Amino acid sequence: MNLKAYLESRRIEIENFLEVYYREPFEPAILYESMRYSLLAGGKRIRPILCLTAYETCGGKISDILAQASAIELIHTYSLIHDDLPAMDDDKLRRGKPTNHVIYGEAMAILAGDGLLTDAFRLFSKSDLISGDLLIRGINILSANAGIYGMVAGQALDIVSEGKDGDKETVEFIHQSKTAALIKASLIIGGILSGADSRYVGALSEYGENIGLAFQVTDDILDITGTTEELGKPKGSDDKKNKMTYPAIYGVEKSRLIAGECVNNAKNAISVFEEKAHWLLEIADYLLTRTK
Amino acid sequence: MNLKAYLESRRIEIENFLEVYYREPFEPAILYESMRYSLLAGGKRIRPILCLTAYETCGGKISDILAQASAIELIHTYSLIHDDLPAMDDDKLRRGKPTNHVIYGEAMAILAGDGLLTDAFRLFSKSDLISGDLLIRGINILSANAGIYGMVAGQALDIVSEGKDGDKETVEFIHQSKTAALIKASLIIGGILSGADSRYVGALSEYGENIGLAFQVTDDILDITGTTEELGKPKGSDDKKNKMTYPAIYGVEKSRLIAGECVNNAKNAISVFEEKAHWLLEIADYLLTRTK
Repeated sequence: MNLKAYLESRRIEIENFLEVYYREPFEPAILYESMRYSLLAGGKRIRPILCLTAYETCGGKISDILAQASAIELIHTYSLIHDDLPAMDDDKLRRGKPTNHVIYGEAMAILAGDGLLTDAFRLFSKSDLISGDLLIRGINILSANAGIYGMVAGQALDIVSEGKDGDKETVEFIHQSKTAALIKASLIIGGILSGADSRYVGALSEYGENIGLAFQVTDDILDITGTTEELGKPKGSDDKKNKMTYPAIYGVEKSRLIAGECVNNAKNAISVFEEKAHWLLEIADYLLTRTK
Repeated sequence: MNLKAYLESRRIEIENFLEVYYREPFEPAILYESMRYSLLAGGKRIRPILCLTAYETCGGKISDILAQASAIELIHTYSLIHDDLPAMDDDKLRRGKPTNHVIYGEAMAILAGDGLLTDAFRLFSKSDLISGDLLIRGINILSANAGIYGMVAGQALDIVSEGKDGDKETVEFIHQSKTAALIKASLIIGGILSGADSRYVGALSEYGENIGLAFQVTDDILDITGTTEELGKPKGSDDKKNKMTYPAIYGVEKSRLIAGECVNNAKNAISVFEEKAHWLLEIADYLLTRTK
């Protein structure tokens, strides 16, 4: 199986899991619809895939933790809905479709985000196979990296930094927190839930932090060099909003070098897994060369 | 000790715990400040107190679960911040102080809420004393009742019902979900974390559902009969927003009777605890007669 087929089969497993998990409608219907609208709008599902791949790399069977991996996608989706709000980035298009608040209104978009974020922890807590102690360690990592020591902190600094002169320290904090933290957490969680010891979990953490940063830098480069069709959103929107990004501070060429360096660091970090690391190695290279 | 002194001593323990938990600043400072601003703005802390009292009624020592009880207050606080947003209830005053978005702006208020909600699960997962299995059961209950099977669903129906003709079924769903669910969860969690069996947890659940409803009906009555000074927010705001409330549908007198009936049901539900139920019995009566 090549990487494309591997990623596609994993993506479909996540999609199917999410579809079944939210098959039963709940009240009020508009909340149910708005949550499903954004959750099932497509996307690469890269975070849950990384969680599954980490778990498998540590010797686990991925069907054991589909719930926990999918919970990470609920958190990612909520963050997109809230980031797109008029009071935040005010984006109208996401994955080629109108953003949640454009369809359901601002109040319902806030609540759809709140609902997905809260329900992520309900979904994460569902397991007959993984011990409570491992699940709790996973929740601790997830909530730290999705919250004040990760994503929420990164988005907050992103918002207050708009229009200010960029500096390297700030852009690094934003990217590490806003994007890399949840990607890193996805990998750590895969390791933790497998029961792997700290040497392996530490390797996954370092890998995750590095590919997380490479992923965001590549995203920012694509915002400049990609097409609206490829991106599913208008290109050049970071520049329009005066966002602090790597290309804005270092230029596109130097940013490419930084991303490449991160990918090398990531690949070195997981040498401990020897030949079992092959999917993680291929994913690291793919994140650098993707065009959407 | 009388009830007033009991509630006050518990309230202070929660306040102190929260103060210490968020003593260490994190970045960016504005996120830290906006989260603390709302979290430490006072309030009755009734949800964590109920959690502690349930735990104690089941034979536990309250210092064991201060983190988990306080986590519920983080969730309650986030819900107030988001409910007050311009896109939601658009409230400018809360507990006698300007609401979060009035001070920190809409974007930061959304993020402060997201931060508190996420961090509630980090705080809940911190324990050296309670087993992972019990913590996971607690998180499952908390996330269901704070989310799509509780608070978020109730707020969503509340928002879409504004200005519509009230009906009894809708107002019951809103109150059960928006307020009673988290209060019920606070009691169930106290029971679960103590390791009590399902007979006791079931009794706490029924008690919680009933006092939760009584609490919200009394709130709505106070919105009509109280003073702005007592309430810490303008009186009559439900009516102004055309909110679906018990007094709006049944009138004040009939609503008082309904609240009284709920309190009686609550008190009957916990007979299984015999004389150990005394604080829960007193709290039920207090919730009915409070003036703020």
